[in-house]
Amino acid sequence: MQDRLTVNLGERSYPIFIGSGLLSERRCFEPYLDGRQVVIVTNQTVAPLYLKSLETTLQAYKPVSIVLPDGEKYKNLDTLNTIYTELLKQRINRTATLVALGGGVIGDLTGFAAATYQRGVRFIQVPTTLLAQVDSSVGGKTGVNHAMGKNMIGAFYQPQCVVADTDVLRTLDARQYSAGLAEVIKYGLIGDREFADWLNAHMQELLALETAAVVHAVKQSCADKAAIVAEDELEKGRRALLNLGHTFGHAIETATHYDSWLHGEAVAVGMYMAARFSRDLGWIDDSAVAFVEQQLLSARLPVRPPKEISVRQFMDLMAVDKKVLDDKLRLVLLEAVGQAVVTDSFDQQALEKMIQQIGLER
Amino acid sequence: MQDRLTVNLGERSYPIFIGSGLLSERRCFEPYLDGRQVVIVTNQTVAPLYLKSLETTLQAYKPVSIVLPDGEKYKNLDTLNTIYTELLKQRINRTATLVALGGGVIGDLTGFAAATYQRGVRFIQVPTTLLAQVDSSVGGKTGVNHAMGKNMIGAFYQPQCVVADTDVLRTLDARQYSAGLAEVIKYGLIGDREFADWLNAHMQELLALETAAVVHAVKQSCADKAAIVAEDELEKGRRALLNLGHTFGHAIETATHYDSWLHGEAVAVGMYMAARFSRDLGWIDDSAVAFVEQQLLSARLPVRPPKEISVRQFMDLMAVDKKVLDDKLRLVLLEAVGQAVVTDSFDQQALEKMIQQIGLER
Repeated sequence: MQDRLTVNLGERSYPIFIGSGLLSERRCFEPYLDGRQVVIVTNQTVAPLYLKSLETTLQAYKPVSIVLPDGEKYKNLDTLNTIYTELLKQRINRTATLVALGGGVIGDLTGFAAATYQRGVRFIQVPTTLLAQVDSSVGGKTGVNHAMGKNMIGAFYQPQCVVADTDVLRTLDARQYSAGLAEVIKYGLIGDREFADWLNAHMQELLALETAAVVHAVKQSCADKAAIVAEDELEKGRRALLNLGHTFGHAIETATHYDSWLHGEAVAVGMYMAARFSRDLGWIDDSAVAFVEQQLLSARLPVRPPKEISVRQFMDLMAVDKKVLDDKLRLVLLEAVGQAVVTDSFDQQALEKMIQQIGLER
Repeated sequence: MQDRLTVNLGERSYPIFIGSGLLSERRCFEPYLDGRQVVIVTNQTVAPLYLKSLETTLQAYKPVSIVLPDGEKYKNLDTLNTIYTELLKQRINRTATLVALGGGVIGDLTGFAAATYQRGVRFIQVPTTLLAQVDSSVGGKTGVNHAMGKNMIGAFYQPQCVVADTDVLRTLDARQYSAGLAEVIKYGLIGDREFADWLNAHMQELLALETAAVVHAVKQSCADKAAIVAEDELEKGRRALLNLGHTFGHAIETATHYDSWLHGEAVAVGMYMAARFSRDLGWIDDSAVAFVEQQLLSARLPVRPPKEISVRQFMDLMAVDKKVLDDKLRLVLLEAVGQAVVTDSFDQQALEKMIQQIGLER
């Protein structure tokens, strides 16, 4: 079971390979390496599981490996500098390729290191979480956090190719896997009703990690995201749809200090809140809200925010993004299952009321 | 006296405005700002001289100003982080434009901050040294130094426009001005014999800062560089010609710890050494070497390396670039005044002999 998808970005187009056992497939890597130096960047969690295997696949290139500590808190300029130092110590030149073996943090760090080491070297993504396979594989967002805000430093930089080996998801814990499913569900909700229905029919197979279902889900997610990114590579418009559930979700992540909620879990709740608010505005009916809630629950995801967050705190935290990034609070809401829109025309009080109401249901 | 030149890089094309008094010309800035937030980045040397003037020109945008300490040693990730922190504190968003007011260090730092703040905001260059006007204005090289090497971290990122006000050169000290002339001379030597002859005829006017001569020299230098960069934006081939004199020059800068020789002075010596070696290889004759030497001397530039650098040290330092960046030592040499080539086919011993010979002449 192997599949291939192309992300169409003109001269920056690249393929995504999706399937079982791809970590051992030299042909997924070799055409993109051009016979030069190879550096694998990974972390201490992933290295014991998959580094040896990838090193073996790439052994003709005598790869250098850099193993970083694991965690979002290491996604910063200091770790980036650690990578630069190691690259310079190993005398890595401009013709090298960096291979990111890990989840979103490793992908973002490695991609940004590749974008900026000697003004740009090539890189390949080997995402090892479901979230990274369906999200950071497509779109070229790379970067690090700043003490004052997440993802505030970075670049749009596309990989040479993405190798998504679905076998590696077997070592992912169930909670992480479900968190990845939240983003998969998102693609259906924002623009692909057919995929949303397919997910309802195949959720059990996905939870059982059946290869055919996982390959389809990853491929369709990447295809949906690629279609949006191809239209709006630098996120000036339509690409904002991909933030469905994220404004509510970021508020939850911030309020809980990024240490008890996974990103996908917070986004799941955020998508449910977006659905509820869309209904309050009269855009969708109760059955659409139920569709969203049931699909999230079937993926073993939460749909209510933690009760320690007050309405006031929610509103304040959502306003932070706004203050830093733009003048107005924009939300992604639903006009139907499979049809999202970005809007800033809604009543602040109605929003507060929805958050308050959901609070009472907990 | 005002002139305009376009750097042709497809959708990344931009104009360079060159002339007297441009710092006060709103029309050089306004079409590139789009009515949004403006942040001026400058240093403690330039701020007292020109910041007020630029702030007045841009006052409709209520510009925020960031004043950094002056010097190459601040061109690093720490200073970059200082810029990011200030941008976040001031709630600067993705629609902002950063304006670099200063020499090469400010341009490189600000350009890289613009390339990476929130994955890219716009920037405008206002170069205040001759070197920055004729060199960093064109080509989009941005970045910072790493403890293990100069310019090891960075990005190719083009400005919206460049505003080169030749009046600001009047406050530049004579040594800095001559160092800038070294790069002006370089453009003639590598590919523009006509310009090389013009420089011989107009060197006194340039040294007297006569506006017409300065505008022509800046414009022709930018045009010559732009033609090379347009052919090879990402420095994969022909752009390497711009390194005439730089391999020898870097060795001098490193050996003297970057604290007694200006970059342009080291490059001047490097260009003379390249001319001497070209003659030793039989590519040019004595009169061409004399042309190079006389032109550099007429611009009040040095043409012999400092005597404390041994032949061995020269060879070792030149090999450092090679080891980090590539397998082979490449040099830019002259086939004629106005015709340079990149080559790695020369005899190591002949090179050592040239360095030794020049050492005896000091």
